[in-house]
Amino acid sequence: MVKKAIVLLSGGLDSATCLALAKRRGFEVYALSFDYGQRHRCELEAAHRVAEALGATAHRIFNMDLSQWGGSALTDRSIDVPVDEAAEGSDTIPVTYVPARNLVFLSLAAAWGEVLGAHDLFIGVNNVDYSGYPDCRPKFIEAFIAAADAGTRAVDEKWHWRVHTPLQNLGKKEIIELGISAGVDYSLTVSCYDPDPTGAACGHCASCLLRRAGFAAAGVPDPTRYRAQGRGE
Amino acid sequence: MVKKAIVLLSGGLDSATCLALAKRRGFEVYALSFDYGQRHRCELEAAHRVAEALGATAHRIFNMDLSQWGGSALTDRSIDVPVDEAAEGSDTIPVTYVPARNLVFLSLAAAWGEVLGAHDLFIGVNNVDYSGYPDCRPKFIEAFIAAADAGTRAVDEKWHWRVHTPLQNLGKKEIIELGISAGVDYSLTVSCYDPDPTGAACGHCASCLLRRAGFAAAGVPDPTRYRAQGRGE
Repeated sequence: MVKKAIVLLSGGLDSATCLALAKRRGFEVYALSFDYGQRHRCELEAAHRVAEALGATAHRIFNMDLSQWGGSALTDRSIDVPVDEAAEGSDTIPVTYVPARNLVFLSLAAAWGEVLGAHDLFIGVNNVDYSGYPDCRPKFIEAFIAAADAGTRAVDEKWHWRVHTPLQNLGKKEIIELGISAGVDYSLTVSCYDPDPTGAACGHCASCLLRRAGFAAAGVPDPTRYRAQGRGE
Repeated sequence: MVKKAIVLLSGGLDSATCLALAKRRGFEVYALSFDYGQRHRCELEAAHRVAEALGATAHRIFNMDLSQWGGSALTDRSIDVPVDEAAEGSDTIPVTYVPARNLVFLSLAAAWGEVLGAHDLFIGVNNVDYSGYPDCRPKFIEAFIAAADAGTRAVDEKWHWRVHTPLQNLGKKEIIELGISAGVDYSLTVSCYDPDPTGAACGHCASCLLRRAGFAAAGVPDPTRYRAQGRGE
């Protein structure tokens, strides 16, 4: 029997790679995206293209408004997204952190997974580039598994959730190399924190800086569509 | 400084009691309800009345559609709510269990709490009446706290989440007695799993049976409005 997995799919580079890896490992993939009030909503169109291109069995966009309580530059338009400031190696929590986001996202993935009988969840968290996000660290993932095990049918039916984080210890260069080997077309993805309405990247947020450096380091032409005035070159 | 707490408020008997207890302990209360596709949506009007009557500082209804993946009699109209079948003492998970519901609800409470600076969450889970729900058990609550501690600002700022479950070990009779001493007007609440559109209770679901027995045991007149043909007396 083919095993099912839920893959959290933002439409960015990391989650697209995750989806390709889940497919390569033989899972039937159910992609889950969130329309949560993020300013970079063209991500969702990217997610749709990626899910289709990589052969997800289903793609669902879950609506909920995390912007209603604000607290992050990604959902609150009164907080600016920092420009030309790499998050790499930072020890403080960046303003682009969305409170409890991965806790909420994984919880909803577990809810869908429980109904589908998909006990494998994939999330593209990464500890190398963004050490500042608490909800991307291995300790959180482990603690989440324990909470999901205790609070769902898993505990009574004696099975365990598996949360796969295949990118946890990889740099952007390695992620890109891995993704290309697994068939990801990165031109379909959007990583920018502050893209224009057409999905063109700003070229200056922490996410753009990392992504661009990743392609350069991997020696792969950067397929990102930058907006004309935003490229800064 | 007055401490803030988030109280998960369904509009039912237990969560109303929780809210009153949080107020009595001196918290400034932020009530959080979910419009998640439940069939008993008149609960939300009840929640609004309860929040107002008990002096919540704010009441927020968070919209998200958990019915889209089904899996529960409370969200999926193709699954019937059982009648005249008490859940009490049951060891199997009832069909009214909503997959990962309290994991999702508490995660969203933590998200709002993180923005508000409210590190105390109240939830009216109870281990006596509904032992069949995994997400109402103390082990889940403990595991959730560990996950929230690891996946939010708590870990970097060196504080801890507190999840208060003041009803955990009480029977319905004791909950009602406690609530009345704390000023709850139970006529404002709706507990029924399958009320009619006016909010009148069916009188026959597991929740109605427990609630009615609780009032009888407490020797308090039952203020519940039952629908005419549903009372079955």
